[in-house]
This record gives sequence, structure tokens and C-alpha cells, in this order.
Amino acid sequence: MSLNPSYIQPGQDFNRDTNYIEDRITRDGRDGWPVEPGRYRLVAARACPWANRTTIVRRLLGLEGVISLGLPGPTHDKNSWTFDLDPGGADPVLGIERLQQAFFARFPDYPRGITVPAIVDVPSGKVVTNNYPQITLDFELEWTEYHRAGAPDLYPEALREEIDEVANLIFHDVNNGVYKCGFAGSQKSYERAYDALFARLDWLEERLAGQRYLVGDTITEADVRLFTTLARFDAVYHGHFKCNRNKLSEMPVLWAYARDLFQTPGFGDTIDFEQIKRHYYVTHVDINPSGIVPKGPDARAWLAPHARADLGGRPFGNGTPPKAPLPAERIVN
Amino acid sequence: MSLNPSYIQPGQDFNRDTNYIEDRITRDGRDGWPVEPGRYRLVAARACPWANRTTIVRRLLGLEGVISLGLPGPTHDKNSWTFDLDPGGADPVLGIERLQQAFFARFPDYPRGITVPAIVDVPSGKVVTNNYPQITLDFELEWTEYHRAGAPDLYPEALREEIDEVANLIFHDVNNGVYKCGFAGSQKSYERAYDALFARLDWLEERLAGQRYLVGDTITEADVRLFTTLARFDAVYHGHFKCNRNKLSEMPVLWAYARDLFQTPGFGDTIDFEQIKRHYYVTHVDINPSGIVPKGPDARAWLAPHARADLGGRPFGNGTPPKAPLPAERIVN
Repeated sequence: MSLNPSYIQPGQDFNRDTNYIEDRITRDGRDGWPVEPGRYRLVAARACPWANRTTIVRRLLGLEGVISLGLPGPTHDKNSWTFDLDPGGADPVLGIERLQQAFFARFPDYPRGITVPAIVDVPSGKVVTNNYPQITLDFELEWTEYHRAGAPDLYPEALREEIDEVANLIFHDVNNGVYKCGFAGSQKSYERAYDALFARLDWLEERLAGQRYLVGDTITEADVRLFTTLARFDAVYHGHFKCNRNKLSEMPVLWAYARDLFQTPGFGDTIDFEQIKRHYYVTHVDINPSGIVPKGPDARAWLAPHARADLGGRPFGNGTPPKAPLPAERIVN
Repeated sequence: MSLNPSYIQPGQDFNRDTNYIEDRITRDGRDGWPVEPGRYRLVAARACPWANRTTIVRRLLGLEGVISLGLPGPTHDKNSWTFDLDPGGADPVLGIERLQQAFFARFPDYPRGITVPAIVDVPSGKVVTNNYPQITLDFELEWTEYHRAGAPDLYPEALREEIDEVANLIFHDVNNGVYKCGFAGSQKSYERAYDALFARLDWLEERLAGQRYLVGDTITEADVRLFTTLARFDAVYHGHFKCNRNKLSEMPVLWAYARDLFQTPGFGDTIDFEQIKRHYYVTHVDINPSGIVPKGPDARAWLAPHARADLGGRPFGNGTPPKAPLPAERIVN
């Protein structure tokens, strides 16, 4: 997500800047960035829901061996995500302390937010793209040659229209909807976002009552996009962003759906609840000036049985689940 | 509660100033304030849990006809609760705009917080006492001549020691415990208060599993004191004060116990969820600078059946429930 020293603009709705560096890494290299194993580094903070999409898809497709992963810490200063968790405070591959350096290597006067996820060209140290909705699609469609054996098809051609449509509703009302609640500059703006958010969650609760996944009978891009918000809901959005009609855990269908995904290899193993909570509660000083991070809720609830398999569905279609994460990328929760 | 322009002291535990004006209104009038119908006005904001004790006990004992009720609005400036909800912005009996005026009438240099509940001597306009733990006990023990027919004994002689002991544990860990979480000046201080709070709630969950009320088999002062915090738990303390191991509604015994009391005449009819939420979210500018008030949770959950009657117990002992509130004191939720 973007960095903004003041998150709330009094009297105004929250408006996400959706202008990104839109270069793509493609098979034909038409933007100057061809698919090439070992060349690119994905920079994705564990805390960030937009970055989380990319870490999940990278896991599901088995791209760990060809696209390496840089992990900024959960908090950042007002200008940049930083590699404060790495030895010496620098990313071991890029050799930079601040992600901003890679943006400036590309555009010395880069005027927008220094956001994750970002993909950096390792040889030049330049950011190629931070256009997160395209990044996962390109992992799925352009990097096919390097997918692991048994990788699922997360964006099946026959279902793309429906996936796009569902993902679009979820983006406005849920993914970005929780931010519109939390960063609302007026009571009215907050309430409008809250109503849209819970109306959409009710709609999802109904949609998912009879089917295991959002579109079709396998995991798709749509599930990835919904999951990263649900994973943060009770830990952060319910309290910090005032999305408090109810907890996710009070919506039986959605909560079971979210646990099902969490327990699927490639999803839960990308979630670091401590970093997630630290990020929101420490970074948003205009929402939580004390910087104190709530102790609850107990994340072990994510491991409870969910019985969603009774609905049928084949998580990986004709494929298989990914193996365990790389040792360096394992999360201790 | 007390007024403090800055609620959080960085690095420090929250320390409640428990020094009050300790005069008592007694049968023998030994402090100069004899029990006398129509002479005193109880000033008690709906929002405040400490004031709420007095409005409940006044209802249960049927003292509405002898002690009138002044109702400051849910928010206040940094110096005083105000009568901003009354016509012309002044209390219709005391004729003052700010509760501070009654404190200054008594002590022109009164240096402490202007707190509710406070009892004001109507003829002189002076505050008699704001010592809330004693106010309810005196309602119970000194005003007996004016209790309604069928009023319960909320502080039975044989159980006083146990009531005091339980109430003391509840005060430190729960009533004041939620404030110690919310106003903690350090992560460590917050976590200590959080652990003590939920350990005590677990203890209560167990204690109340087999008995309908906290002490004995009837409603007592101990239940009143616990109830006013429970009533605010999911609406405010869970999010705003970061008491988020779980919602009250996730503790089946305590939640049923709280609903049982809420549905008992004299309890729920003193609760105004809108004022409660406005008070905390608007007044505590250092916790919620935006002043936006969360829309959730849905208060109708308080009306769900509780089945606590199966445990036996006689809410009012040999007495009866109070009649409906006075028309002027009815709350529209």
C-alpha cells in the first residue's frame, strides 16, 4: 500500500492513488522487461494486503526459485518502506536500506507513494513495476514456463470475465472498502463505506454458502484477492478501521471459507499476524497516536476445522498443493 | 468519570484519581446533608459507567420520586460535563450550563476533575458528593424510608463482606481495568492490564456458570458494578480500549449473564448505546483523533434469550421489579 504521512483528510472520502508504474514483465519483453529466471526481485512486506496477493500467487505457482523475495519490515517512515529486519538493515540482494532507492534509481524524481508490492530488476536496481493488480496476472499468464509441476490455473480463460467482475466488486467494497472506513474524513463518508462493506460481505456470505470458492470449483485469483483482506479483518480492520458490525468470525460461512484458504498451503504460510498488527497500529499515527498494538485476538482460531471440503471443489484443479515454503521465508507465528 | 484533556501519559500506567468529595447524605445528617425527599439532584451522564451505577440503583430502589435526575450530554469540553441536551443548554432544575458551576459553588477553587455521578443540593446549588462507590451504598442503606414497596435489598448484611471482596476484584481488573488498557502509556502497561482483565473475565465466566448472580441468589450491588462495564464492552472497550482478546458476546456465560441483567427492569432501561459510543469516541481525542463514531455492533443482540432463569435465583428476592422509567427519562435506542 501507499505511504501517506496523514491518512485521514478531514471532510473527505479516502481516495486511493491507483496510478502505478505500469511496465510489465512479459514473455515477449515488449516493455523492455522479459521473463527471465533470477533476474527480478519481488519486494513485498508481510504486513501489506496488496503485497500479500503476490506472495500467495508466487507460492501457489512455485515461482520461489525464479523470482526472489525481499521483505521490508512492518513499519516504515513517512517516505519509504525499509529493510530494517535484514542484517545490517539492507536488503541482502539489492543492497539498499530503503525501497525508495529502487524507485529513485528508476525515476529520480518519482513523485508518488513508495508502495509494495514492487518488482525490482536486480542488475540495474530499478523498480520495474508496482502495479499490483497486473503483477499477479502476469505471474499467472507470462511466467507459465517456470510454474512448478502441478501449479493450478488461477486465471482460467473461461472464467476470466466472472473473476474480473467479482474481483472488481470486492476491490471497491472490501479490499479498498476497509480503508475507506478507516481513513474516512467524515462520519458520513465512514458510514457510507461501512454500509457498502457489510452489504458486500453479506452478499459473499450468501454466495459462498453453497460453493467452496468464489468462481468455479477451484481456487482462483478472485479468492486470493478476497483472502488477503479477510486475513486482516479481525486482527486489524474490525477495531482499527471501525469495521465493527461484526467480526469475520461471526459470519459462519465467510469465516469457514477464510479458514479453509488459510489452511491451504500457499495462503496461511504467507500470513504474519504480528507484522500485520504492528504495521497498521504503529504506522497510522493519526488513527492510533499511542502506537500501542492490541494483543488480541487469538490467531489460533484460524486453525479450527472448517468442513468446507463437504461442498466439493478441487482447490488445485488437476494440480497439487505447493511444497513447504523456503526455509528463509518461513513465518513463526 | 474524570475529565482529563490528555488521557494517555506516555510511558506510564493509567492512574485514576480516586479522591472525591466524600460528604455523605445520611439519615442522621452528620455531614450536614440529611436524607430529604426532593432536596437533591443526581447528575449522571448516560454515557458514564460510574454514573450508570447510580441510575440503576435509583431505578431498582424506586427513588425517582425523591431524588431527581439531571442528564449531561455524552460529550464535554476539557473542563466540564455540560447540559447541552437540555432546552437552552441549562439543567432545568439547577439552572446551570456546566456541572463545574455546582462544584465551584461548593469549592471556588476545586482543583480535581468535574466528575459524574455528582449529587447536588438543589437549594444551595452546591455539589454534596461525587464519591460514586459510596453514593449507591447510601441509596441502599440511608434512603430506606423512601424505597418503593417491593424494593430489593442490594446490599444484604450477611453478604456484605463477599460483595465488597468481589466488587474490589472487579473494580481493579474490570471496571478500571478497561481504562488501564485504553489509557496505557506503554505497550507493557497495556499488556499487563489486558492480561489481568481477561484473567478476571475468565474467572467470572467460571463463577457465573453455575449461579445466576455474583453473590447469593439475588441481584446485589456487585452485579450492578459489573454490569455497567459489561454493557459497554463490545460497543466501546473491545475496539477503542483494545480489550480485544474477544468480545463479551464470545464468552457464553458472561454474555448470557449480561443479557439477563440488561433485560431486567432497572438495568437495560438506563443504557443509551448512542450516548455511550459518542462519549468515548468523541471525547478521547488522543485515542480517536478523527472523532468518528463506529456504527457497530448491533445492539439488538442484547435482547436475545439467555436461559439464565434455569439456574434459579430470585432477581428481586422477596421484592418485585420496578415499574417503567419516568416518561422524561425513557431512552429511545
